Amino acid sequence: MFSDRLAQAATQIQSQFDTVLNSLDDVPVTHAMAHATQGGKRLRGFLVLESARLHGLDAATAIWPATGIEAMHAYSLVHDDLPCMDNDDMRRGQPTVHVKWDEATAMLAGDALHALSFELVTHDTVGPARADLAHTLALAAGQRGMVLGQALDIAAETADVPLTLDQIEYLQRGKTGALIEWSACAGARMAGADTSPLRTYAQAMGLAFQIADDVLDVTGDASTVGKATGKDADAGKATFVSLLGLDGAKRRAAELVQSACDALDTYGPDADVLRETAAFVIRREK
Amino acid sequence: MFSDRLAQAATQIQSQFDTVLNSLDDVPVTHAMAHATQGGKRLRGFLVLESARLHGLDAATAIWPATGIEAMHAYSLVHDDLPCMDNDDMRRGQPTVHVKWDEATAMLAGDALHALSFELVTHDTVGPARADLAHTLALAAGQRGMVLGQALDIAAETADVPLTLDQIEYLQRGKTGALIEWSACAGARMAGADTSPLRTYAQAMGLAFQIADDVLDVTGDASTVGKATGKDADAGKATFVSLLGLDGAKRRAAELVQSACDALDTYGPDADVLRETAAFVIRREK
Repeated sequence: MFSDRLAQAATQIQSQFDTVLNSLDDVPVTHAMAHATQGGKRLRGFLVLESARLHGLDAATAIWPATGIEAMHAYSLVHDDLPCMDNDDMRRGQPTVHVKWDEATAMLAGDALHALSFELVTHDTVGPARADLAHTLALAAGQRGMVLGQALDIAAETADVPLTLDQIEYLQRGKTGALIEWSACAGARMAGADTSPLRTYAQAMGLAFQIADDVLDVTGDASTVGKATGKDADAGKATFVSLLGLDGAKRRAAELVQSACDALDTYGPDADVLRETAAFVIRREK
Repeated sequence: MFSDRLAQAATQIQSQFDTVLNSLDDVPVTHAMAHATQGGKRLRGFLVLESARLHGLDAATAIWPATGIEAMHAYSLVHDDLPCMDNDDMRRGQPTVHVKWDEATAMLAGDALHALSFELVTHDTVGPARADLAHTLALAAGQRGMVLGQALDIAAETADVPLTLDQIEYLQRGKTGALIEWSACAGARMAGADTSPLRTYAQAMGLAFQIADDVLDVTGDASTVGKATGKDADAGKATFVSLLGLDGAKRRAAELVQSACDALDTYGPDADVLRETAAFVIRREK
């Protein structure tokens, strides 16, 4: 059920990107935008579509903010991969944008995807919530959300003292939590419904997602001959595993998934796909 | 009248930036955002305030989109100044963000200002037009507007054949025209009025602005001993001056300013400050 829905969402979002990007001038930055928006789990866009479905909204409306949030996520990856940031050559099995083109094209393609995200969430079809969607997206994406988390993460790499648990949670809430929360709340927002159950759900799930990442960094590497510890531990970075221990981190992630599911009680069985989504984020192997 | 109003607008916008940026976390990216939003003519924000005043809207409402468009402009300058783009060390008499901090901070500060721009134009105070303001701003800023113009400008630098007049006008319409047009139309949009007179005004003025830039690149340098031609001519770039000649370019700019003023006939003397603004863009010495 969950995996079918996720696959279906990915297809719908890709098709929407194809249509939108085809309407742009045929220049390298546009091609780079298409490259950067291909592949990926589409978890954020999927959350928008499921949140909308839960509130009785059709996919033809929700596809706009769903594609919009994926454009936002794609821009953040293109900029994060640049040499002055993480300097990554590969992403989703493909060369990164600055490797395939150059740094200027990557920066401009990221900037264009950032603007495109707001273009899509404010599309006429979205209806009366489009201003609220844009405003909350700006809060989630900027220096009160994702960019702040990214800035704190960079600062942590050169800090003398490792971060505390509270500080890591604060960082994570911006870096990955804010867009996930926006996505899960989008349907409620479009329907004019209370966003608090989905907000609680998304906050717990977002944190579980990041803990699972830290666990994978250790258990993934531990099974590989000659690499006893992961790259974060090697880099001396504080992680949920370094602070809670491996078992403690796994336990905390499982508790958070339970909290995430409990927060959806008000929706009954209609929210089962979202509950499966929460279970998925700590079960995944990559 | 015009210069008093422009100075007053600059003060109001700076004060609004101070308030908004003070509400952000006290980290280097926030300081870089403050640095990047200091100084400048504030022409775009001024156009928003004047356009709003022309439609009977008060400055307390219009200050949000006025500050928002200046955040957008500031982000574009921070990214343009980066080494992979124009590689500029100085801006408005101060070191550029990547020189004062580093490239990662400059990229993140630009990204945060980009998001902040949408946060501000969709502020509750702005009223029912905030979704339209955000949507049209996204179109003006992204790969249908400013980013496209920037991408075409970069491509032109390495092209074998100089651009034609039509191509330069198309590039300019994106690179500097789109934000100017958005600014001039903002007040009409907030008031639910017809945007076409201000659109015609802004398109003519935006083009005159760019022609004036090209003229200054030549006449400015011609008066300097030992530098007979400007940097664009040295770089072999097609400019309005290389295509129209110096006198032809000046004449075209003056005609455009006249067209810009004529487009405001419907507003009568209430639009005199905007007419002075159009005259200013070709009279300025920097």
